[in-house]
Amino acid sequence: MKNRDIAIIGSGLVGSLLSIYLIKKGHKVTVFDRRPDIRTIQFSGRSINLAMSNRGWNALHAVGLEEEIKKIAIPLYQRAMHVNDQPVYFQKYGKEGEAIWSISRGVLNRRMIDLAEAAGVKFKFNEKVWDVNLPEAKIYTGETEKSEWKAYTFDHIFGCDGAFSRVRHKMQRRSRFDYSQDFIDVGYKELTIAPDENGNHKLDKNSFHIWPRGKFMLIAMPNLDGSFTCTLFLPFEGDVSFETLTTEEKAKDFFKEYFPNVRKEIEDLTKDFFKNPTSAMVTMKCFPWTYWDKVALVGDSAHAIVPFYGQGMNAGFEDIFVLNQLMEELGDDWEAVFKAYEKERKPNTDAIAELSYRNFIEMSKKTADPNFLLQKKIEKHFAKNHPDKWIPVYSRVTFSDKPYSDALHIGDEQERIMKEIMKIPDIESKWDSKEVEEKILSYL
Amino acid sequence: MKNRDIAIIGSGLVGSLLSIYLIKKGHKVTVFDRRPDIRTIQFSGRSINLAMSNRGWNALHAVGLEEEIKKIAIPLYQRAMHVNDQPVYFQKYGKEGEAIWSISRGVLNRRMIDLAEAAGVKFKFNEKVWDVNLPEAKIYTGETEKSEWKAYTFDHIFGCDGAFSRVRHKMQRRSRFDYSQDFIDVGYKELTIAPDENGNHKLDKNSFHIWPRGKFMLIAMPNLDGSFTCTLFLPFEGDVSFETLTTEEKAKDFFKEYFPNVRKEIEDLTKDFFKNPTSAMVTMKCFPWTYWDKVALVGDSAHAIVPFYGQGMNAGFEDIFVLNQLMEELGDDWEAVFKAYEKERKPNTDAIAELSYRNFIEMSKKTADPNFLLQKKIEKHFAKNHPDKWIPVYSRVTFSDKPYSDALHIGDEQERIMKEIMKIPDIESKWDSKEVEEKILSYL
Repeated sequence: MKNRDIAIIGSGLVGSLLSIYLIKKGHKVTVFDRRPDIRTIQFSGRSINLAMSNRGWNALHAVGLEEEIKKIAIPLYQRAMHVNDQPVYFQKYGKEGEAIWSISRGVLNRRMIDLAEAAGVKFKFNEKVWDVNLPEAKIYTGETEKSEWKAYTFDHIFGCDGAFSRVRHKMQRRSRFDYSQDFIDVGYKELTIAPDENGNHKLDKNSFHIWPRGKFMLIAMPNLDGSFTCTLFLPFEGDVSFETLTTEEKAKDFFKEYFPNVRKEIEDLTKDFFKNPTSAMVTMKCFPWTYWDKVALVGDSAHAIVPFYGQGMNAGFEDIFVLNQLMEELGDDWEAVFKAYEKERKPNTDAIAELSYRNFIEMSKKTADPNFLLQKKIEKHFAKNHPDKWIPVYSRVTFSDKPYSDALHIGDEQERIMKEIMKIPDIESKWDSKEVEEKILSYL
Repeated sequence: MKNRDIAIIGSGLVGSLLSIYLIKKGHKVTVFDRRPDIRTIQFSGRSINLAMSNRGWNALHAVGLEEEIKKIAIPLYQRAMHVNDQPVYFQKYGKEGEAIWSISRGVLNRRMIDLAEAAGVKFKFNEKVWDVNLPEAKIYTGETEKSEWKAYTFDHIFGCDGAFSRVRHKMQRRSRFDYSQDFIDVGYKELTIAPDENGNHKLDKNSFHIWPRGKFMLIAMPNLDGSFTCTLFLPFEGDVSFETLTTEEKAKDFFKEYFPNVRKEIEDLTKDFFKNPTSAMVTMKCFPWTYWDKVALVGDSAHAIVPFYGQGMNAGFEDIFVLNQLMEELGDDWEAVFKAYEKERKPNTDAIAELSYRNFIEMSKKTADPNFLLQKKIEKHFAKNHPDKWIPVYSRVTFSDKPYSDALHIGDEQERIMKEIMKIPDIESKWDSKEVEEKILSYL
């Protein structure tokens, strides 16, 4: 295989992992980022902790990084549901030993850049790409849009520059480029629960903590230092919203009323609430993802999703895993690799976008609709008795490497069956009966 | 009302009509266009003739331009369907006297600019807007993106700069801006049928001519000079497509095989085919359309649609009509006007986008699916006997000023009814029976 001179735009998680894949193949790799080196700065307070699951680990495993990264991850075996006036209850994620792994985005990103640099990748920080010449694989960088620009020419360029990608932006101005960005009307804010005086976690360390409150929700994921990174999801506008929580007093009352078991943290939470920015969430889809054999989008730049399935990074890492497989199959024919890559990935990333959006809708309903809760209870009961016949969508997405589009498709099929089941007269009282079980079996 | 200093970006149909509305209200109006004055140049060969219908005329009427513009328009009372090996057959568009009006885009645009200039609007051609400061209603123009820029500040800015609007582009980079662009896999090319030796139309002048061929289609609309502007809609890729028609020989064979009754024009059509560009078609949606009381998008910049309902310009003109009504209702509160404008128009332009896209799908099926043709026959038959009970969607869109969203909604309802009707056993033989008529009545 011919060694190439490759540029990666973006030194985030996807950019840095891709750089490791490519340098290990013998290519020359330069990573550009408009921001300073994340290892030299305080990481911004706008991140949701990552939940690494099967697809992410697969991609790390293939370049021998799984064990290294597991050292900075904490396994979460269950959800811890915090419902007011009830004891915390736990829901296992999967089968024995199945877990999602909590990792701080900043910690992971720094480690990945260290590893990439050690492998020979060259990083150019504080260098913003303003324009891309797609057919010539040429990028232009500079201080400002109107300042003198520097031009670099490469054999190939990868746009790993996130949901608001500059590389995609250039592709987007071409004819016949499909594109959509859809924001949800809920925003989020990062908050922190500090370690206790001994440096330990104040809540169960191996759980994903959720305070579901209908239209809003608080979650918490553990960090190595004993703290939790919390995320408050809250509507931008409306009764209880970012728009209305304008004073410290109101914010305090809000935490007191809705999250009584984090009462001790209220001072910190309130401080964070006004210190940290409110972020928006978007679903972004586009096509094509590639330009000839010259340019390809990978990760969020090709498919940004809302975070309610914890699959954003996992989907991006799987892009790389698939790209690598195709490079091994198709060798030096980069145009064929790029065409096959976008063709294979597009339906799957569309599927995880849809599933993530549905999870957002579902989470708002979860505590409110008794029918929905009953349906979930029946599914769970059946799956327990017939684990081979009913694999929940969550497991297909999180603990498997089968295509996301299969998970979506089979999930729709399960939903169709459950619609029929829920029509059974008096289903409330016989939800765990032999009759219901037989009925479900008859549909499968 | 306070007189304002207003910029309109784009001197197309919507921009120039809006300028006339605003100058008549006493505002100062400057129109910027990156292109040269259309009155001084040969108009490009990439236009589909316009079909002005009710909504467009309403908007012209309200500023007293209807009669003036009717002078350059030709009424079309019917479709003329050209099916191979059959005589041409005619389908009336609506009731007696109802027509759509064929206008050449270039001719109309020139006239509108003349009228605007005469009313006192100032035009700045060849001046491209590179950046917009939204909160300050400031625009920056210049030779190139990197050259020295000139800054202008206004009270309000209207982005009438089309589907690839620079003004919207600036709004799009903000958070929580929803946006989508979806291209269809069919392109189009402008072709011309010249007048006969006496300067007369070679085909019936008062018809919209259609050669439906399943996956592709030719249409022709008359011009004042005796010519027809034709548009060939053809897939970009595939068996019969722009991709495969690469030589004059192939293009000639194509016209000969599929459009035998324009055989005499083949030399001209073939020449045009290689002279004129192939254009793509896009559905573009976005929201919001306005920024405070400072900036508003009007026409294609806010909602671009595929041309298969002939409503692109009509929808843009209706935007202006509605904006004007709201200005009269709400007076000097521009923020309220802008908010009400986007709220009222958005569901309607979404509806016409959907209807236009469906018409594209429908046109591909029309000649192929006997069930579809039978259904249309039944609807027509019923509508004729019960004109008060069944107004076809086409008439609601074209010959009414009722909201597009009503047309879509009622059309869906009609479709639901017809689905049931088509299930009637032996419907092929009793489609015009009393039984079927009664059945439809029972659903209404």
